[in-house]
Amino acid sequence: MGSSFGRLFRVSTFGESHGRGVGAIVDGVPPGLPLSEADLQPQLDRRRPGQSRLTTDRAESDTVTILSGVELGVTLGTPIGLFVPNRDMRPGDYQEMSNIPRPSHADFSYQMKYGVRASSGGGRSSARETIGRVAAGAIAEHWLRRAYGVETVAWVSSVGPVDAALPDPETLTRDQVDATALRCPDEAAREAMVREIQAARDDQDSVGGVVSCVCRGLPAGWGEPVFEKLEALLAQAMLSIPATKGFEIGSGFAGARLRGSVHNDPFVRKGGRLGTASNRSGGVQGGISNGEPLLFRVAFKPPATIGKAQATADFEGQETVLEAKGRHDPCVVPRAVPIVEAMAALVLADLALRQAARDHSRTK
Amino acid sequence: MGSSFGRLFRVSTFGESHGRGVGAIVDGVPPGLPLSEADLQPQLDRRRPGQSRLTTDRAESDTVTILSGVELGVTLGTPIGLFVPNRDMRPGDYQEMSNIPRPSHADFSYQMKYGVRASSGGGRSSARETIGRVAAGAIAEHWLRRAYGVETVAWVSSVGPVDAALPDPETLTRDQVDATALRCPDEAAREAMVREIQAARDDQDSVGGVVSCVCRGLPAGWGEPVFEKLEALLAQAMLSIPATKGFEIGSGFAGARLRGSVHNDPFVRKGGRLGTASNRSGGVQGGISNGEPLLFRVAFKPPATIGKAQATADFEGQETVLEAKGRHDPCVVPRAVPIVEAMAALVLADLALRQAARDHSRTK
Amino acid sequence: MGSSFGRLFRVSTFGESHGRGVGAIVDGVPPGLPLSEADLQPQLDRRRPGQSRLTTDRAESDTVTILSGVELGVTLGTPIGLFVPNRDMRPGDYQEMSNIPRPSHADFSYQMKYGVRASSGGGRSSARETIGRVAAGAIAEHWLRRAYGVETVAWVSSVGPVDAALPDPETLTRDQVDATALRCPDEAAREAMVREIQAARDDQDSVGGVVSCVCRGLPAGWGEPVFEKLEALLAQAMLSIPATKGFEIGSGFAGARLRGSVHNDPFVRKGGRLGTASNRSGGVQGGISNGEPLLFRVAFKPPATIGKAQATADFEGQETVLEAKGRHDPCVVPRAVPIVEAMAALVLADLALRQAARDHSRTK
Amino acid sequence: MGSSFGRLFRVSTFGESHGRGVGAIVDGVPPGLPLSEADLQPQLDRRRPGQSRLTTDRAESDTVTILSGVELGVTLGTPIGLFVPNRDMRPGDYQEMSNIPRPSHADFSYQMKYGVRASSGGGRSSARETIGRVAAGAIAEHWLRRAYGVETVAWVSSVGPVDAALPDPETLTRDQVDATALRCPDEAAREAMVREIQAARDDQDSVGGVVSCVCRGLPAGWGEPVFEKLEALLAQAMLSIPATKGFEIGSGFAGARLRGSVHNDPFVRKGGRLGTASNRSGGVQGGISNGEPLLFRVAFKPPATIGKAQATADFEGQETVLEAKGRHDPCVVPRAVPIVEAMAALVLADLALRQAARDHSRTK
Repeated sequence: MGSSFGRLFRVSTFGESHGRGVGAIVDGVPPGLPLSEADLQPQLDRRRPGQSRLTTDRAESDTVTILSGVELGVTLGTPIGLFVPNRDMRPGDYQEMSNIPRPSHADFSYQMKYGVRASSGGGRSSARETIGRVAAGAIAEHWLRRAYGVETVAWVSSVGPVDAALPDPETLTRDQVDATALRCPDEAAREAMVREIQAARDDQDSVGGVVSCVCRGLPAGWGEPVFEKLEALLAQAMLSIPATKGFEIGSGFAGARLRGSVHNDPFVRKGGRLGTASNRSGGVQGGISNGEPLLFRVAFKPPATIGKAQATADFEGQETVLEAKGRHDPCVVPRAVPIVEAMAALVLADLALRQAARDHSRTK
Repeated sequence: MGSSFGRLFRVSTFGESHGRGVGAIVDGVPPGLPLSEADLQPQLDRRRPGQSRLTTDRAESDTVTILSGVELGVTLGTPIGLFVPNRDMRPGDYQEMSNIPRPSHADFSYQMKYGVRASSGGGRSSARETIGRVAAGAIAEHWLRRAYGVETVAWVSSVGPVDAALPDPETLTRDQVDATALRCPDEAAREAMVREIQAARDDQDSVGGVVSCVCRGLPAGWGEPVFEKLEALLAQAMLSIPATKGFEIGSGFAGARLRGSVHNDPFVRKGGRLGTASNRSGGVQGGISNGEPLLFRVAFKPPATIGKAQATADFEGQETVLEAKGRHDPCVVPRAVPIVEAMAALVLADLALRQAARDHSRTK
Repeated sequence: MGSSFGRLFRVSTFGESHGRGVGAIVDGVPPGLPLSEADLQPQLDRRRPGQSRLTTDRAESDTVTILSGVELGVTLGTPIGLFVPNRDMRPGDYQEMSNIPRPSHADFSYQMKYGVRASSGGGRSSARETIGRVAAGAIAEHWLRRAYGVETVAWVSSVGPVDAALPDPETLTRDQVDATALRCPDEAAREAMVREIQAARDDQDSVGGVVSCVCRGLPAGWGEPVFEKLEALLAQAMLSIPATKGFEIGSGFAGARLRGSVHNDPFVRKGGRLGTASNRSGGVQGGISNGEPLLFRVAFKPPATIGKAQATADFEGQETVLEAKGRHDPCVVPRAVPIVEAMAALVLADLALRQAARDHSRTK
Repeated sequence: MGSSFGRLFRVSTFGESHGRGVGAIVDGVPPGLPLSEADLQPQLDRRRPGQSRLTTDRAESDTVTILSGVELGVTLGTPIGLFVPNRDMRPGDYQEMSNIPRPSHADFSYQMKYGVRASSGGGRSSARETIGRVAAGAIAEHWLRRAYGVETVAWVSSVGPVDAALPDPETLTRDQVDATALRCPDEAAREAMVREIQAARDDQDSVGGVVSCVCRGLPAGWGEPVFEKLEALLAQAMLSIPATKGFEIGSGFAGARLRGSVHNDPFVRKGGRLGTASNRSGGVQGGISNGEPLLFRVAFKPPATIGKAQATADFEGQETVLEAKGRHDPCVVPRAVPIVEAMAALVLADLALRQAARDHSRTK
């Protein structure tokens, strides 16, 4: 219970970090869509560990196989099964931690919930679980681009205490984001950010950060009042990503400090449509897209697993010191960029289908 | 599509702000629970307009009637129908706005989505829709208190630029929160907050704010990985409340600036159970409650409807000036307190039932 | 849990037989549809008790009020709240049965499930619960007729051992069905059927029957493989009606006795479309409508509550004799006709919206 | 949309008949349950083609692999991924049929629904899709047996016009059913049944049949009024199996011919519990199990794909004659036995978990 997301465009993921592999089923993908593994692999490659010194060096090729739902390069409208085998498993890394729940990790809460847990790695709480999401999100994105021209671009907007300047969300591209392994388009901030990460790594420590995201090109009308508002589903989607602690749309927490006369986005004619002069709403009003770019931010805490010694207690409550073994990201935000994009695309694809049903349900 | 929330403890709301009334059906309420309208009315009274000069003066008694699911003062386990009639409707207030979509309000996006919209007031995007949630949440809260001893207390933690000091989340009570109409327990900050709201009202303007919330007493084990993590469902629930722009759990965005060695919550023995020495996690790890208090914050933008003149455009794109009539809150956060509590309780009741199923599914 | 049906066109019902009233929320109704209570009342009138000597004489006007979701005679696309108050409650009729579970009624199983039950009448298991379905189904039907030209006509096809001849499903109308209170279009069988019911009534007994139904005008393509096949959802819908024991589509159980070469429906050109020469499939192949009329049958057992003395046991297992008081239908099938139509329309409206989403999700 | 079933114990299947393979994800399996492939394989072997001359001779070993959710032989409470590769694919068999939709098969309706379809075999409408269900159902069954002592036994109760006598549902075992490849425990009827199937096969034809099923040992209280009644979900589950045309519970259609005084099941003391003297209800009253054995029947039409020449039309409406190639079952009911059992177990496991949540939600 809990491993599925979406109503009409619906992903269900499976797989532990140290089992046979991870994957997903995606039900509700529109039929007749040209699709092959080559459409999915680029986002998986962007998510993959070992891309640079800034991330974990677990070596995984993360090559996805489509198991079903596609024939002769075209989707059948039936569930698409996706699978990525695990290769570089080193359960031994985790053995000595078995009786010490890692602070701020899921070891303790999984044990309390299930009465049992994967004996090594993070099981389902591992970042490895996100592979299924990224593959599924790549399908969503692929369809949204073709059907509506929707583009989704996420980037690193802060690392530890270092904030990047806001890029122009109307024009930012993935190529600009991927210009460096850090995935921050602000050249000025990059050097300080990289230093933060390297210092954390050198200290056997970790550091948090923020990923920002823009979705462009979606029409007005997506989002389902009242509990499945566009921003509500985005918030759920983002807070379902491991290590996230916050979500803001548009003006976010800063907007809560303003007056309405300052905060409101006045309407203006924009070509053939009605648009807004500013975008503090972040592209959504009353839970429904208004045709402006969606803009939101996601806070990631510093990874919980660190090599640095931590005074803590074991499962029996005995005081102890933990120095975690294994290969860990000192900072997850560069690799989180495609995960945020994937979750955004999954939300949008589902809402697009729901609005398509409504748009075509009108009687004369 | 979108007016239901929860899987096992499930609320479905209905009603427009200027129709016959608003209400909800709550399915999945445990049977045998003593319940009457008197258990629901207090939270509705806290949400009611016209409680003080700080809020709108629309006069509504908001008296709830239980239509079904309760007999002889005890729940039957069947759906509980709830209804609150609308009384003080003044559609005339809205007439002149009919061709001018209010900036940052839902008029435009509803029109684009549905091709039609309620001719007056906010329809489903109105704060009035939250009555059904508050009544349903009061049932959830009532059950959680009896079944698990869970207590939920929200409070105003900032108004405009004024921040309150953090109260002790382990001991804060609703009585302390309700000591003043502002619902901020920080005496030192209160005066400045009230001034902010009154100044906004005097300027025919509005101002935003933040509501914080603590849930105490929940056991470890609630929350469903991976897409229905406790914090993910809370984020959805909170961002489904009108006028919200952000959600943080535990350390939130501030946590993203820290190192892991600083951020991690070390385990310690706490009486008979394993607890954490600090609570930057906000009571949740890997999407599952860890037995510490849940702590989260919700950002509310300044209300969009203001009397102050705004340069904007009408539906046809013609430039115009809007001075909204009608009765509007200059600041929603005092009245949002019971709404945040209600949504939190709805999330927790659902996850409690899901974990109850799991806890009792073990084989020997 | 269990009082909602449908994914995009979704009804949630509430209400006990002897509480304040019964009703429903219908979410997902297309916006812009002309609708008023006058569109719903006719089917409620057909379902109403006291229409003739053949049914119970509980006197209820069953007048429906639309609480929300409609303004100025047009649907808003928001949830439609529906309410019908209970008037002719006589809890006293049920008092003496309180310690004797009625044989083949829900008294015992409700008590075992919930540990509590409505003290009188059938609570949620009462036929009165179906009011919400019929009102909701009338909306579904109203939309299907306007949007697709779909027509649904059910009729009584057997009463006890008396079978009617199959009418022409392509042309049968509701007026023909309603020509007599029995709702059986076969004049030849009618007299014997009425005799069966009157004899059962005279004996303080009850008798079962079968309702058949045809849905005409639906296009090919409705139904969602694999678990939500058109016939699977129809089967669920029909077996959710109180007192049902069986469902058949097309050839049904009789088809299981045939050879494939006899049973198969060969394709033929029918005007501009491909149709089938026979219709043993009942309008569905592989779980998807094929453009031919849907044809199915629903078996209703004899009502469990009878005045005739029954040797049985009370809740404590003591042998006793029960002679049920209260007003009961000797045969439910005449009043079940609009209920079967309502459930069929609810299934079709939901599948129509799901296919509309798919039809409009194609990329070029 | 449509490839998932269940709310708390939830299966999602994937895979085409002629793609890489078929499988399922099962979410919500209770944690701590001993489980390995050896627990699943027996039911897959019973479903497997090529078991005898009575079924298709497509040669598949149908060996299942558990991809996730199990570690060290014990379930983790996380999604269990299941996969069975396809081996004996012969797409060539289907080539010449590509422009002729097989009568009463899904070729035409899939094409109309999706605008595209698997170029060979039945795609998702193939019996091969049921592998995922059978594997998932074996998990459900395994848990139900350990947690509640529930036993599910299905058998062939008719083939074409030949009916078997009703075995004693209280004592019938799978071993008795599997005594012959036909899976009919009535020795007297078996010979005539086998003759029916062999005659159909010799004529390049097919023949229908009925599978009956009993579930023993479930407690009173399972089933969710009003739309998810036990019999309603069973009906959906059974009508979702390919080639089914009807469902009956308890007395079924025959019960519709009776008087209430004859049909009602009087209560009697049965050891420590209240039971019923007869079981025309089929183990369910008001949609809720009453503690008596569940008894139901499922009608299967004759397989649509036959070698015998059929006059029909091609997709363009041109008259033609089809003689289907490929390997087809002349009669599906022997192999349908484990599929019916699997679907029954999936329904029961889900309802058991839902009732577990309720049972443990009571407050003092």
